[in-house]
Amino acid sequence: MTPPIPHIGLIGYGNVGSHLANILSTREDIRLTVYTRSAIIGDNQHPVINFTQDLNNLSRAEVIVIAVSDDAIVSVLNQLRDRISGNPVVCHTAGSVSSDVIASYFDRYGVLYPLQTFSKEKKLNYSDIPVFVTGSDSDTIGVIKKIAGYISSSTQEINDDQRISLHIAAVFTCNYTNALYTIGHRICSDHDLDFKYLIPLIEETTQKIRELLPREAQTGPAVRGDWNTIHKHEKFLAGYDQDINDIYRKLAHFINHNI
Amino acid sequence: MTPPIPHIGLIGYGNVGSHLANILSTREDIRLTVYTRSAIIGDNQHPVINFTQDLNNLSRAEVIVIAVSDDAIVSVLNQLRDRISGNPVVCHTAGSVSSDVIASYFDRYGVLYPLQTFSKEKKLNYSDIPVFVTGSDSDTIGVIKKIAGYISSSTQEINDDQRISLHIAAVFTCNYTNALYTIGHRICSDHDLDFKYLIPLIEETTQKIRELLPREAQTGPAVRGDWNTIHKHEKFLAGYDQDINDIYRKLAHFINHNI
Repeated sequence: MTPPIPHIGLIGYGNVGSHLANILSTREDIRLTVYTRSAIIGDNQHPVINFTQDLNNLSRAEVIVIAVSDDAIVSVLNQLRDRISGNPVVCHTAGSVSSDVIASYFDRYGVLYPLQTFSKEKKLNYSDIPVFVTGSDSDTIGVIKKIAGYISSSTQEINDDQRISLHIAAVFTCNYTNALYTIGHRICSDHDLDFKYLIPLIEETTQKIRELLPREAQTGPAVRGDWNTIHKHEKFLAGYDQDINDIYRKLAHFINHNI
Repeated sequence: MTPPIPHIGLIGYGNVGSHLANILSTREDIRLTVYTRSAIIGDNQHPVINFTQDLNNLSRAEVIVIAVSDDAIVSVLNQLRDRISGNPVVCHTAGSVSSDVIASYFDRYGVLYPLQTFSKEKKLNYSDIPVFVTGSDSDTIGVIKKIAGYISSSTQEINDDQRISLHIAAVFTCNYTNALYTIGHRICSDHDLDFKYLIPLIEETTQKIRELLPREAQTGPAVRGDWNTIHKHEKFLAGYDQDINDIYRKLAHFINHNI
């Protein structure tokens, strides 16, 4: 006898939700319904995704994945509680929200946390993305791990404290790194230099940490204690925002004292 | 008649000098002499490089490349002045030192600036590295550009102001990015998480800026204005150094106000 095809309800179609929908909708062994508050414009771009604007259509889902902004998770849980008829596994996808937030609403709960920078407009190779799983009990962990396995070959069980650590490490190494790229872009533009000149350097910086520890890979004036160059740079940056100056100084200090 | 083989004198065998020596020593159409203050241990690893500890052996060089720390450039120029018999092109490789520093010592001067993060122990594909050239006159620029062309297929003439801009942009996008990787590494270690989990995220962050402008690629709590998450992270980071807390806060502020 063929096992029944599980029904997954996905709530949210933002940066994370849209990527999850793209992956899960291609599988024939699950039935996916994607809830969004407003109609998706240009539905014909997603002919295989079953969208709904009525939460009641998720009432019989075996698994519900809440991929909305952190602030909206509790509101979604409130709306879901009275609409669910069975005993589904309910998980969110947020790095810095405890899994326990779901505990007062559903018995079987957890988190499915894909560690990646999602922009709607940028395609991704999902198989490389590590997906982290937290769950209220071993059966629930198994269910969430199975969905994680649909996304990636790299899945790992962690606790809430480890997930917020990963999220913060990701903020530093991805979000803040990208902010430094923005500063580099601005300085280049202001001096009639194409930002593309920096790309080989940026790529090598990333490549290096595959072979060396980050602290072994450190180069530049701050790690050499070359204050003469640092002071030249500070003088040059005087025409820029205070924030950029503060960031320059703080990171020079951090490197010089800690690396 | 075959043109005479030009003699290049390279001064310094640190992070930049050693890589330049490796590239230039493989060419049969130049004669390279590498000056170092102390003997190179394990010379047999570099059988094709002609090392010297006597600056007089560079007296007849047509081109001299000074690849020493910024602070040592003037001292090297002082030592060179009385030892040089001809009218060589003399250039340094520093991002933030004006080319004019050479003007009171030699008539034909400039800068050969390869924009890359050099660690002695990490091999590089040189052909991708942009090499920037500054020179005192068009003939000198031509000579330095020729050497730049031995290193890379990407060479570009810039002025002193543009070079310091590139150097500062490189400090932000490479040196400071690597410092953020160090912070990420520390947070992972402290919570029993393998830093390698962050590698796909870090690589995607780099890949994205090939397709999007850095400000378009920005993700994370700060660009969403998600202060709830930012405050959770600040609370979590309370156990870490003040520097790390300051860097977290400053970059959140910069992103929220500027991106």
